[in-house]
Amino acid sequence: MNIHTLTIVGVGLIGGSIALAARQRGLARRVLGVDCQPATLDEAQALGVIDEGVRDLATAARRSALMVFCTPVDAIPAQVLAAAEACTPGTLLTDAGSTKAAIVRELDGRVPAHVTFIGSHPLAGSEKRGPRYADAHLFSNRVAVLTPTPQTDPAALVRLQAFWQGLGSRVRIMPADEHDRALALTSHLPHLVASALCGVLPAGLRELAATGFRDTTRIAAGDPSIWTGIFAQNRDALLAALPLLVGQLQAYREALLADDRTAVDALLTQAKRTRDALGS
Amino acid sequence: MNIHTLTIVGVGLIGGSIALAARQRGLARRVLGVDCQPATLDEAQALGVIDEGVRDLATAARRSALMVFCTPVDAIPAQVLAAAEACTPGTLLTDAGSTKAAIVRELDGRVPAHVTFIGSHPLAGSEKRGPRYADAHLFSNRVAVLTPTPQTDPAALVRLQAFWQGLGSRVRIMPADEHDRALALTSHLPHLVASALCGVLPAGLRELAATGFRDTTRIAAGDPSIWTGIFAQNRDALLAALPLLVGQLQAYREALLADDRTAVDALLTQAKRTRDALGS
Repeated sequence: MNIHTLTIVGVGLIGGSIALAARQRGLARRVLGVDCQPATLDEAQALGVIDEGVRDLATAARRSALMVFCTPVDAIPAQVLAAAEACTPGTLLTDAGSTKAAIVRELDGRVPAHVTFIGSHPLAGSEKRGPRYADAHLFSNRVAVLTPTPQTDPAALVRLQAFWQGLGSRVRIMPADEHDRALALTSHLPHLVASALCGVLPAGLRELAATGFRDTTRIAAGDPSIWTGIFAQNRDALLAALPLLVGQLQAYREALLADDRTAVDALLTQAKRTRDALGS
Repeated sequence: MNIHTLTIVGVGLIGGSIALAARQRGLARRVLGVDCQPATLDEAQALGVIDEGVRDLATAARRSALMVFCTPVDAIPAQVLAAAEACTPGTLLTDAGSTKAAIVRELDGRVPAHVTFIGSHPLAGSEKRGPRYADAHLFSNRVAVLTPTPQTDPAALVRLQAFWQGLGSRVRIMPADEHDRALALTSHLPHLVASALCGVLPAGLRELAATGFRDTTRIAAGDPSIWTGIFAQNRDALLAALPLLVGQLQAYREALLADDRTAVDALLTQAKRTRDALGS
């Protein structure tokens, strides 16, 4: 992998980490950053996260061999289309959005023929924001999901796979719909539940919320505007996931109401088995 | 604070951390450990967590000025009563259980007059088990709740408060019922919810469960037998807390169904505000 110019659009925690990892691992000769906030670009350059900040998306697009869009999910399609017009032939475009079906569907058949867009989602991140939290090891041994369509150029998919592997990721390839149904359970429902738990904590009891509450709700500190977009784009799968959780809560409720310790123990034991299988 | 002999009953993560902190901070001249598993006692002694392992509860009780019961909540009352019979006059007994009302109620009026029992709950811990995870700093700047009754000897309460402060804790005093209602929201409901989230994760999707899922469900790796006891002892408050969470989930569901991004954003923003107020 030797990209002459890699452009990261949206130089926050994720975008900054991709830029830093690409620089440190020598995947790209030059890493450009594009961001709507000039201060973020300046900070990213000062931190050595990017080589150069570029204010204008089209200018960066013209110079790029690979562009990665790390902006909120509902901003991605329009930005990809705007950039694609300016790209030179053969440029590969991808993103790092937490939802895939809406983005892929919106871009399907609309990206000019001289470039390729393939959706990506690296399963890594944190509730933090900004290039100062960029971490060159963020993707090491983490899964990155790529969501090609039947029309995707296989050679471009191979290149994109090599890029994510170059960042340290384990690549999984699946249809965008399948990704979204899975992530509704593994990421979007947990975010909703963590936020709901915060919603039931009265201010007067904050002092009594210890490690357990803090771990369980950590992701609720994420940026609401980003997550509102994710929830909106994956609304159907999230609405389908919610009753599964409510069903589990109902099972606990019935076991408690019946004072059935064997049933409570069985539920907790099954949950522990699942959690233990995930590792720390 | 200069206790001649401190006895820890149940030398796991919590009991071991109390023992280690008391030794390192010089709160007690001698720290005894009592545990039903001889291997745990040997390990705790080898690790320097306790000075001496004692197999027989009554033998340890006879030698103690302060005893702390760090066993599962439903084992505590019987162990306290058994030990209390053997204690010399003036011995102070407490516990570290996650529920308080049932323990305090069961012991109220039944502990012999020559000793005092006061309930304690240090809000610290982890999903790990055993003395090898003992941490002398586990209680530093954490809250410890003490739950005296109107009959509690004020001098004994002052001694117990000094003990927990000596371990680094910030002490809060409240009735056992109030503690249990609060902890239902701040600890027991989060444990139930983390476990319920694990319950909806199919084995085939484990690979796609990243940091967010792991943080949110970390406490579900806790020992089911300990948590079955906690849930049973705090059943009423937990059953009263559940509908508050279900109500929050319902609010998210309705906002999603109506495609009302403003409402979703408002819910997430309120949750973030609460989570930010807790710190990391």
